Amino acid sequence: MIVIDGKAVAAQIKLEIAEEVKQILASGNRKPHLAAILVGHDGGSETYVASKVRTCEEIGFKSTLIRYEDDVTETELLNKVIALNNDADVDGFIVQLPLPQHISEQKVIETIDYRKDVDGFHPINAGRMSIGLPCFVSATPAGILELLKRYAIETSGKHCVVLGRSNIVGKPMATLMMQKTYPGDCTVTVCHSRTKGIADYCRKADIIIAALGAPGFLKGDMVKEGAVVIDVGTTRIPSDKTKSGFSLKGDVAFDEVAPKCSYITPVPGGVGPMTIISLMKNTLLAGKKAIYP
Amino acid sequence: MIVIDGKAVAAQIKLEIAEEVKQILASGNRKPHLAAILVGHDGGSETYVASKVRTCEEIGFKSTLIRYEDDVTETELLNKVIALNNDADVDGFIVQLPLPQHISEQKVIETIDYRKDVDGFHPINAGRMSIGLPCFVSATPAGILELLKRYAIETSGKHCVVLGRSNIVGKPMATLMMQKTYPGDCTVTVCHSRTKGIADYCRKADIIIAALGAPGFLKGDMVKEGAVVIDVGTTRIPSDKTKSGFSLKGDVAFDEVAPKCSYITPVPGGVGPMTIISLMKNTLLAGKKAIYP
Repeated sequence: MIVIDGKAVAAQIKLEIAEEVKQILASGNRKPHLAAILVGHDGGSETYVASKVRTCEEIGFKSTLIRYEDDVTETELLNKVIALNNDADVDGFIVQLPLPQHISEQKVIETIDYRKDVDGFHPINAGRMSIGLPCFVSATPAGILELLKRYAIETSGKHCVVLGRSNIVGKPMATLMMQKTYPGDCTVTVCHSRTKGIADYCRKADIIIAALGAPGFLKGDMVKEGAVVIDVGTTRIPSDKTKSGFSLKGDVAFDEVAPKCSYITPVPGGVGPMTIISLMKNTLLAGKKAIYP
Repeated sequence: MIVIDGKAVAAQIKLEIAEEVKQILASGNRKPHLAAILVGHDGGSETYVASKVRTCEEIGFKSTLIRYEDDVTETELLNKVIALNNDADVDGFIVQLPLPQHISEQKVIETIDYRKDVDGFHPINAGRMSIGLPCFVSATPAGILELLKRYAIETSGKHCVVLGRSNIVGKPMATLMMQKTYPGDCTVTVCHSRTKGIADYCRKADIIIAALGAPGFLKGDMVKEGAVVIDVGTTRIPSDKTKSGFSLKGDVAFDEVAPKCSYITPVPGGVGPMTIISLMKNTLLAGKKAIYP
């Protein structure tokens, strides 16, 4: 059984990106520039955005953090998005979700210029991904593909069970795993809250991608010998053992499941670090205008 | 066992649309207007386009057919698409596929204004469908959903196996059947050429949507008792029994499979007629600006 080291892979990719940034600077071009809009003070969002800003520094990107209080109006936020769309110095930007209830997330996402949509949430990027055209693939699915690649995990003809049908992970992951490419060419089953006999589907899977947000959902007896298990869950559980007062718990009961697996990602240190680095890769691609001219 | 009568349902919807057109005219507005571009003389394409034009007449739409020979240049075709985008009299239009090899189908599709893309092939419509936003759902998937609805076939919690992963049927059908809505809420498995043990997946399915383009692929021993079978296959087989010299053959070995089914669509007369009528429904929606302002 191999525990997939997302932190190590992310560190490796960081070095690769940093090297590329050096070459970009050496050839007289400016740093890739990622901007992030953060509304309010949600604990998870604060952590994620801080980590994104820190990673930008580490790899030599320029980063800009734009903060609003919870009471920012939708119009004010949309105007900022439009300003970033028009700012030639910004290569890509994200609006950290969730947003306060009085703001339409969908409206915000659709207002972002798809050519700067490094989160890959815009319908154009979602549609191009589904069709198999070049696009910004959203960061978590892209990170998972990268882990499968770096560990040379075989996927063609395998049965991949995706747990969860969210727009951000479940649906894109299903689409990507069925494409005629590597990683891909899987027979894909998508299970969710309405699925009957979910354990049976899991037990038949060669690859399980768990993205339900249900801590410890996938138990040892739900996984067959030799399965590949990718845990996308990151539920914050109160903890007195950490400085922050909480710990992250995945969808997989790791201690039970791991012994049966050929490969498994831990939480934390599996998919999480890859998500941030995939956002950086998208920003690099945006800076190089590698996907859209 | 009930044979789903796509022809009858389509005829019923035709009446409903014709009624709505009358009301549109009565309220002083103009007819919905569908334009179609046909390149070359492919037998299948000729038949489909002729049928679309005829249906327009029957339900009171205006239709315009624009024909080009096989040697039309890509630029010429793209200019026509742009002209139709800008023609305020045209509510929606299609470019009949396939196109000759020297023309990029993808480029043509992406040049169509997504607000007139009644075939639902544009990445914006594909992406919005995946996310679950209002959009033009492409005609074949939309027609299948309508059949499931009109026959009140239960889908929630059912296992739906989609055979085929094309951008036009397999992928959108999978996405639609997993959405949190009716028809939908299925556990969805997508099988394709790389799937191992495809018969086993089929035998476990409550609903099978066969879109492989492999005549007679689904045999009697691949279907469980009580399954719902939707046959999207329409392969042209030479025949001396028809005036046209060919007959349409579905992906399902109907005589073997039908006795085991709760519901099954025949070929012809199942999904086919629904595809054309769904295109008309999209055109009606485009005319009313019901999806995009």
